[in-house]
Parts: sequence; structure tokens; C-alpha cells
Amino acid sequence: MSSITHAPKGLEGVVATTSKICYIDGDRGVLAYRGIDIHELADRSNFEETCYLLWFGKLPTSTELQELRQRLAAERNLNPAILTLLGNAPRAAAPMEVLRTAVSALSFYDPDDKKNGHDANVAKAIRLTSQIAMIVAAYDRIRKGKSVVKADRSLSHAANFLLLLNGEKPSPTAERALDIALILHADHELNASTFAARVTAATLSDMHSAITSAIGALKGPLHGGANEAVFRILEAIDRNGADPVEYVKGMLAEKKKVPGFGHRVYRTEDPRATHLRRMARDLGHSSGQAKWFEISSKIEEFVKAQKKLNANVDFYSASTYHTLGIDVDLFTPIFAVSRVSGWAAHVIEQLDDNRLIRPRADYLGPVHPAKYVPIEKR
Amino acid sequence: MSSITHAPKGLEGVVATTSKICYIDGDRGVLAYRGIDIHELADRSNFEETCYLLWFGKLPTSTELQELRQRLAAERNLNPAILTLLGNAPRAAAPMEVLRTAVSALSFYDPDDKKNGHDANVAKAIRLTSQIAMIVAAYDRIRKGKSVVKADRSLSHAANFLLLLNGEKPSPTAERALDIALILHADHELNASTFAARVTAATLSDMHSAITSAIGALKGPLHGGANEAVFRILEAIDRNGADPVEYVKGMLAEKKKVPGFGHRVYRTEDPRATHLRRMARDLGHSSGQAKWFEISSKIEEFVKAQKKLNANVDFYSASTYHTLGIDVDLFTPIFAVSRVSGWAAHVIEQLDDNRLIRPRADYLGPVHPAKYVPIEKR
Repeated sequence: MSSITHAPKGLEGVVATTSKICYIDGDRGVLAYRGIDIHELADRSNFEETCYLLWFGKLPTSTELQELRQRLAAERNLNPAILTLLGNAPRAAAPMEVLRTAVSALSFYDPDDKKNGHDANVAKAIRLTSQIAMIVAAYDRIRKGKSVVKADRSLSHAANFLLLLNGEKPSPTAERALDIALILHADHELNASTFAARVTAATLSDMHSAITSAIGALKGPLHGGANEAVFRILEAIDRNGADPVEYVKGMLAEKKKVPGFGHRVYRTEDPRATHLRRMARDLGHSSGQAKWFEISSKIEEFVKAQKKLNANVDFYSASTYHTLGIDVDLFTPIFAVSRVSGWAAHVIEQLDDNRLIRPRADYLGPVHPAKYVPIEKR
Repeated sequence: MSSITHAPKGLEGVVATTSKICYIDGDRGVLAYRGIDIHELADRSNFEETCYLLWFGKLPTSTELQELRQRLAAERNLNPAILTLLGNAPRAAAPMEVLRTAVSALSFYDPDDKKNGHDANVAKAIRLTSQIAMIVAAYDRIRKGKSVVKADRSLSHAANFLLLLNGEKPSPTAERALDIALILHADHELNASTFAARVTAATLSDMHSAITSAIGALKGPLHGGANEAVFRILEAIDRNGADPVEYVKGMLAEKKKVPGFGHRVYRTEDPRATHLRRMARDLGHSSGQAKWFEISSKIEEFVKAQKKLNANVDFYSASTYHTLGIDVDLFTPIFAVSRVSGWAAHVIEQLDDNRLIRPRADYLGPVHPAKYVPIEKR
């Protein structure tokens, strides 16, 4: 075991792979996809173009973008068996459990299921991006006893998703807000869910296995699940008419972590939080629901002063999504609706130059050989 | 990024965590669970006792073992909705895809689904161990148009599984052979599927998410999928009446890897291969199907001489399982029937002292800031 390198807990600060997808400078608060700054993309791009950038490594020409939009739109259909599966899930099942299960089942019906080459995986990336949005929306309608809405192939990915969710075409403001949120969440280098996807793919398993792993990892409250946890706090404060600062002081006194703050990588503000804060404020004002932003602001100010922690991507996505009329337990599934683009890009990159990801453990248990004592003598 | 450590590709030789579960000395060919040598366990223990050892960290007393057997037996029932899901899967769906999906769906019906504490996860470990065996057997019968067999709570885990699979109680030889195979496959430190499970669990997601990730990773031919690949070669050699050595020479000439040989960790013989080789030979002779062992032996001898590679756990499990009458595409699911015990032990250990597993990537893409060129100018 002479060549063993001991890594910090949680692989913190360990470079596990090279990648050409996502650039993060945690000290300066920089995030960029394929070198293009997230602020530029949030201000000027759209989700479909961002998908192209992630999957093909460059911005598309008009023709290439048109082609990708058509391919995404063409995949806006779900096998009826997937709708049956959604209908059979108990009403109490959390949307993330249902999404994980339905995405796993999608492989049964994928025309490229037995293929694992580059082009087949790009096709699966496109298909899964369309299908995950449809599953999230369809399950929400089914569990509420509403009918599943037919997709509109003429709409953008964001607008079609909101149509499928709400049964009506969204306003341009809502469409653009979701589109920006999808751009901001699309990739984030080796976050835990993406790493889970790459570990899974690296056994030469398949895209559906990798994305299913990623959804399972994203579900956790230390990852995507945080935005749901943030809103539960905002709700509790609002319901009890509590003072936000006193409420958070109470949490800290009980040694509870305040969700939506701090980040493994950023030492300064998460650049995504900058956009989401602005969006939460603007949507709050224009929709007459300014209170969520106001509660959030007070918490942010206090936690920053008290704990020196910055708001992360999850903190203001909570009030943004709520103001868009989205149920709290859909916040993390909507993270998946976007992040599938990054997961797929990383799986494709992993498989283009693969090596099994198989680290070691430092064994600290009973010394070998421990005696096998026969059961009658124990 | 000054504190970044660059790890070898695939995290080879990197210690990603401490663990008290599994000891491996790759140079001396040692494998031990909780310090007890795998040879001792294979010769003297049984799968249920091995589960106890993995989950509770010590060998059980008679009473403790009795209690665990009862808890495992009590969980031998599947929610009818899971059988419906298995019945609805297309007949062409691979057993590993179906298992991944069904295990994900099990969380809907798990009485502890919303709990993530130590005791709840031990309960889930027990439940999943019983349920995964039932799912593998039930799906095999359903896809063959046979009726699902009722579990027998008086039988051992191995015997009950063979009953559910074949519709009749196994011979003592078959029961013991499978029991040993289950012991040998139960854990193997931070193999790729276990690592996927720990990465998933470390976001504070849940046991079902973690085990679903693990199944997805195990499916790949660089991991559990290898034993299936081994048997496809044995079959092709037998069907064509080919000379095993010439066949493998042909593979090597085409730069193909011979599955079932070599291991990331072992520099000498995989200690599990020692048992499986003996089992494959004995079962081959006693069942009058010695040819699979003979073909395997010739391949092993040649690859060892030619490529200096040792047979690994997957090489002789192929002929062992085939001689037990198990279909080739069930070899990897049966790996999961056993390995769920180790996966669960690692998830429990991870959550008892958790830290998010989130490494970094070394960015080699376009330099930031790359220009966002408007689409009309591209």
C-alpha cells in the first residue's frame, strides 16, 4: 500500500478528473461553462443554447440551434407505460423518489438502450432532457388528480415545462425567469450528483444508470434538497409571524445548520446567487408577494454578519420558484430538469476517455486476522 | 486553488475515506470482513451471519443470529405494486435495469422511508436484502411466463432465493454453493458500486437512492457485468467447438480485453477466485457439466502465462452460476443479491460520520472569459 495517497475527508480539494466543461474559481466567485461566464449566459443565452454549449463544447450557429430545438421538441413524448408508472405511485411518494424511479424505467423504452457510444449518448442526453421535464410535470398533475397536459412542440423548453405543469402557457416574464434558472443550474463541475453520475458511468454502465444515480444524490439536503429546506423555513417564519433573525438565531442555538448558506467551493458570493437574488426580488415585487424576498433578505444579512457565510444557489431559488407558483417539493425536481444537461455532458466526457473510478479506504477496523470463533463459543 | 491535490486517473490508489468494514491487502491477496479472513468465512460461516458481521461489526451470538434470521424472513414479502411494476416491464428489459427500477420504487412502500437515522437504515438494510433477492427471482419467473413462487420463511436466504427462482427447494449442495458465493461477494471495500452508494448517501439522501446508484454502477462490464461477459465467451467457444486458447488469442489480437482477469487492487490471486475455482470444478464434476470448468481452466492458464493477469472474482463465478442452472443475465443481479449487504453497511458507516463527497475537476477547456458571440455573428 506504499503508493496510497490519503485524501481529505469528502475528497475536499482533491482533483478527481480533468474536464473541459465547467470552470469555477471559488476565490473570485467565477462560474463559466466552456469558458463562457455564467453572467453572460444568464443575461444573453437560453437553456437550449446552454445545452448545446455543454454537450458540443461551443456555441451553436442558428442552424445548429434550430436543429437541437427540433430534436428536443421531437422527444416530447413519454411512453404510456411511464405514465402508468407515475399513476401507480402512491400519492404520498415524494416527487424525487418518483423521478428517480421513472428515469430508471425510461431505459426500458430507449431505442438506444443497448448502445453506449458517443452519438448514442448524445441522443440519450437530448431524450432525457425532454423526458425529465415531462415526468416532473406529469407526476405533479397526476398526484393532484389533474389530467396530463399535451406537450407543445413549438414552445421553448422552459415554456413547455410550465405549460405541462400549469395547463396554460406561461407569461413571457415567467418563461424567462425559469429559463434563467435553468441556465444557472445546468452545470457545476464535480458536484456530488455529477460525481455520482461519473462514478456510475465509469464502470461502462449506461446513461440511464448514471442519471438515476445523480437524481438519487441530488435528492439529499446537503445538495439539491437544500432549496426545499430553505422554503420550509421561510414558510414557518411566515406562518408563525416570527422575526426572521430571531428564528435563525434559534436554529443556530440548537446547533442546526441554516440551509442555503455556504459552499464547498466558493469563498465569496456564489455567482448564481447574484442572479437568483435579483430574480426573487423582481418577481416578488411584480407578483405582489414581496414578503418572501424580504424574509430571505433579513436571514441573508444576519447569517452573513454572524456566520460569515454567503447565500448559495439554493437560498434565493426557493423564493424565486415559490413566486412562480411552483410547489415546494418540486424545487429539487426542477433542479434536475436543468442539471440533467450537465450530468449528461459529464457522462459523455467520462466515457470518451474512461477509467474506472475506484479509490481505496483506510482500514481502521479489527486487526486481520481476527479469529473466527464458532457460534457455540461466542 | 492552492490546496488542490491532483489524484491519479480513476482515483487509483487514493484513500477516499476511512472504514472499519473491509480489509484488503492487494499485494498478499488478503480479503477480510471486520478483520475475519474471507477463507474462514467461506469455509465456516453463512450469508446471514456475514450480514450480521458487516452491519453490526462483530459475529453474532446464537440469539442474535436467530433474531436477524427472523427479521430477514419477516421481510420476505413484496408489495403487490412491485410485482405489477415487474409485470409491466417489457420482456426484453435486462434484469439489471428492472432491478434498478424496482429497488428505486421500493422506497415508496418502505415504512421508514422518511427516516435516515442509524436504526432506520439497519431496518432498510434488512428489508432490502430480502427484497432484492425476491425481485431478482420474481422478474425471472415473470419474464418466462411462470408464476411467482411464495417465499418460505423457514429457509436460509440462499435456499429461499433458489426456491423463488426455480420453484423447488434446492439440494443441500446447491444451497451451500450459493451461500458461499453470497459470502464471497458480500463486500469489497470501496469498489465502484459501493463508492457510488457512499457518494449518493453523503448528500444525506437515503438508503434507497444509494442502493439504486450502486446497482446502476454494478451493471457495467468493468464491474459486476464482467461475469456475464465471461460466460458469453465460454458459450461462444463451446458453440463453435473452438479451442479456448486460440479463441482468446484471437481476442487479444483484436486488442480486446479478456473479461474476468486482472483487478485494480490485487497484484496476486484474488482470494475469492480460489474458492470459486474449486466450486466451479466440484459442481462441474458432480453435475456432469465439467466442460465449462475445463474451458475456463485453459483460458486461465493461457492468460496468466501470456498477460501475467490473474483470474478475478468474476471469472469462475460464471461457470459456477451456470452449473447451478442460473441464466447468464442473472449473474450480475445475483452479485447484487449478495453485495446489497456490503453496500448497506457502507451507507450506514458513511452516515454515522458523514461529510459530503465533492471533489474538484482540473479544468482544461477554453480559457475564461471566452467571448459570448451573439448568434447572428457566429
